[in-house]
Amino acid sequence: MIHPTAIVSKEAMIGQEVSIGPFTTVHEDVILGDGTIIEGYCEIGHPSPLAENKSLIIGKDSLIRSYSLFYQGSVFGDRLVTGHRVTVREKIIAGINLQIGTLSDFQGDCIIGDYVRTHSNVHISKHSTIGNFVWIYPYVVLTNDPHPPSTYTAGVTVEDYAVIATMSVVLPGVRIGTHSLVAAHSLVNSDVPPHAFVGGSPARELGDIKKIKLKDGTGRSAYPWPRHFHRGYPEGVVREWIEQFD
Amino acid sequence: MIHPTAIVSKEAMIGQEVSIGPFTTVHEDVILGDGTIIEGYCEIGHPSPLAENKSLIIGKDSLIRSYSLFYQGSVFGDRLVTGHRVTVREKIIAGINLQIGTLSDFQGDCIIGDYVRTHSNVHISKHSTIGNFVWIYPYVVLTNDPHPPSTYTAGVTVEDYAVIATMSVVLPGVRIGTHSLVAAHSLVNSDVPPHAFVGGSPARELGDIKKIKLKDGTGRSAYPWPRHFHRGYPEGVVREWIEQFD
Amino acid sequence: MIHPTAIVSKEAMIGQEVSIGPFTTVHEDVILGDGTIIEGYCEIGHPSPLAENKSLIIGKDSLIRSYSLFYQGSVFGDRLVTGHRVTVREKIIAGINLQIGTLSDFQGDCIIGDYVRTHSNVHISKHSTIGNFVWIYPYVVLTNDPHPPSTYTAGVTVEDYAVIATMSVVLPGVRIGTHSLVAAHSLVNSDVPPHAFVGGSPARELGDIKKIKLKDGTGRSAYPWPRHFHRGYPEGVVREWIEQFD
Repeated sequence: MIHPTAIVSKEAMIGQEVSIGPFTTVHEDVILGDGTIIEGYCEIGHPSPLAENKSLIIGKDSLIRSYSLFYQGSVFGDRLVTGHRVTVREKIIAGINLQIGTLSDFQGDCIIGDYVRTHSNVHISKHSTIGNFVWIYPYVVLTNDPHPPSTYTAGVTVEDYAVIATMSVVLPGVRIGTHSLVAAHSLVNSDVPPHAFVGGSPARELGDIKKIKLKDGTGRSAYPWPRHFHRGYPEGVVREWIEQFD
Repeated sequence: MIHPTAIVSKEAMIGQEVSIGPFTTVHEDVILGDGTIIEGYCEIGHPSPLAENKSLIIGKDSLIRSYSLFYQGSVFGDRLVTGHRVTVREKIIAGINLQIGTLSDFQGDCIIGDYVRTHSNVHISKHSTIGNFVWIYPYVVLTNDPHPPSTYTAGVTVEDYAVIATMSVVLPGVRIGTHSLVAAHSLVNSDVPPHAFVGGSPARELGDIKKIKLKDGTGRSAYPWPRHFHRGYPEGVVREWIEQFD
Repeated sequence: MIHPTAIVSKEAMIGQEVSIGPFTTVHEDVILGDGTIIEGYCEIGHPSPLAENKSLIIGKDSLIRSYSLFYQGSVFGDRLVTGHRVTVREKIIAGINLQIGTLSDFQGDCIIGDYVRTHSNVHISKHSTIGNFVWIYPYVVLTNDPHPPSTYTAGVTVEDYAVIATMSVVLPGVRIGTHSLVAAHSLVNSDVPPHAFVGGSPARELGDIKKIKLKDGTGRSAYPWPRHFHRGYPEGVVREWIEQFD
């Protein structure tokens, strides 16, 4: 299950039933969990002088799609799934079931919870902190330098269940509150309260998030989203959500 | 004309005078038209459980530039041209002479007309419908979920000859009218009438599109653009435009 | 130091102590300076009919990170450093110590000074002119067509020490003045005076740039930035800055 054109270091620790595609490079210091699939053209465990812990640990049953690049020095929980061409640098600690969209660019040095999903082309700056069940949509950038260029950085914090829609920029040090929604094409320059609905450039409150109705004809509120959106989450999580949010 | 490092499935149907570059993978179920060039580092016909029809058909005299990725299960007309690193998923039906810019990300499940041109880093969500002779400029995103995350999607429709300028976001279900122009860095949250000129966040009408004059010193109107811009279109098409628009 | 899977043209001129990674292609007409490192999966010297001078010259002690693509027909000074997956087309003349961020897309036909730094996913259109010590942050696009599509182009000019923050679009023909700051998520549709601080969509003056204080507790002004930010610049340059700006 390791393609003959793949270059796999003898120092790498490859789990059971791991598949490695054509033209993929796996460097030393890589630990791949059982059942993980690495597609073709990937570079896994790219050396980095910035990595304090040299290991790159990728949990069980993960799927790394083609052309993806991971640096050494990060830890990802089980069932990591990436799109294509993701670039993921050193010093990331991520929970289980992380999804990273095609072309996304994680700059490293950040903490990511469980079940986080980023769509295509999301840019996560160093020192970002992302909670659980967060959604980040295409072309969103989390920044970290309040007066570029400088040596002072202030990461963005995104709390559990928050949703940041397409092509929004979050300025340094901003906190995106739990269950909040940032509308598309926004510039977020101040903290977003929990359950708030904000948008614009700069972002302002746009109204009561509960008044956003699902367009599926049911008339239900679209937020908090865990009351209706369950695709890809395990039964136990969904059961808890139904009790909690419905 | 198939590079010795390329991996080409014996099941693939390769036309006459096809060229395949170094380190490129061509999976089974791929049908490449005569005279097509696939540069290096491409992955053509990536397997997908979502593809209903397993074939990937790429028309004659196409050019797929390096690092590009196509899933199985789509059909492209003749003379497809891509930039580098394009990612093109399953269930796309596209006409002739499509140009896809470098880094563009077509999410699949969409219909695209003839002579459509996207510039770099354009993101086309599922369920988009794009007419003929459309222009989409860098970093434009066509979205599809009106209240993310949800299972309800509403694709964007872009009518013939419409132009969407750099870094604009089009919200779900919006229709961009024929011959209209969306200015750069806009958020389009409602339908754009034919021949309208809109911009801003959210986009509003910005004035009479016919009053936008070419800066080439001729004093002619810049729109409808087919009256003056003919590069790369066949003679027959241009002749018709001159009769129709001049 | 040339990986056995790399494909290096015998016509290429490779300097002393050059390293070339796995699966990298180096075409003919490439001249690599001493001490340069080309990582894996790169394509260096991609043929282009648009290149007037066929050579691609990359200066000494450069670092081209993995998956990067350079066309033939450009000249880069010493100590070029790129992120991953950069796409760099023909007819670029760039000074020393250029840094090109991951996923950036340089369309060619432009002039770039010394010590320019672009962050991730920056798009530089043809006919752009960029001075020395310029900073361009993620997802910024410099455009060039005032009425797309057309054959008339007007490049953007960015003067020395200017800073353009994340996800801003600069419209064709605009001049970004020396030591100015464009705030994140801006649409710049008119010239920015030297030392100005602008932002918004469209961008307007936001106040006195000198009143932006460093958040590091020192109370110093953040601009002109060379008075406090020195990382990666040579001693001689920094010494001059301290005399000039402090």
